[in-house]
Amino acid sequence: MNYEITVNIMPHEGLLDPQGKAVHQGLNKIGLNQIKDVRIGKKITLLVEAYNESEATKIAEESCQKVLVNAVMETAEITVKELV
Amino acid sequence: MNYEITVNIMPHEGLLDPQGKAVHQGLNKIGLNQIKDVRIGKKITLLVEAYNESEATKIAEESCQKVLVNAVMETAEITVKELV
Repeated sequence: MNYEITVNIMPHEGLLDPQGKAVHQGLNKIGLNQIKDVRIGKKITLLVEAYNESEATKIAEESCQKVLVNAVMETAEITVKELV
Repeated sequence: MNYEITVNIMPHEGLLDPQGKAVHQGLNKIGLNQIKDVRIGKKITLLVEAYNESEATKIAEESCQKVLVNAVMETAEITVKELV
């Protein structure tokens, strides 16, 4: 079966996010002063072929550990959706 | 009131995503052959001070148009959450 897995990766809370800070300053500079903070992360979608949802989740977790996520600086959140 | 706005930005469907392709090949190379496709986008969270939800949404949309999103190549999806 095919699964669409979404991995949302954000910098840890409290950790400085220089990219977000730069975008924040840019938005303020063009007059959008109501914006008080910006944080930038990644959204990755994986198309996975697996026998069941738990196998698909395992594959996603392994991908995160080995390649997608830097656990020192980032938090990841995985959601699995079966494709029909 | 404070609103947390999440902007999910993905490359248009059907458009080549070289970053996703590179990660896909990398994952396959370390043995994760069940992964058939990878697409990489951005997840941006904005903290916005506004009088109501519709004003907050307007500010987010303006940010997307002017700075965050390249409409030629990317699709954006905005969700607004009131912070209490």
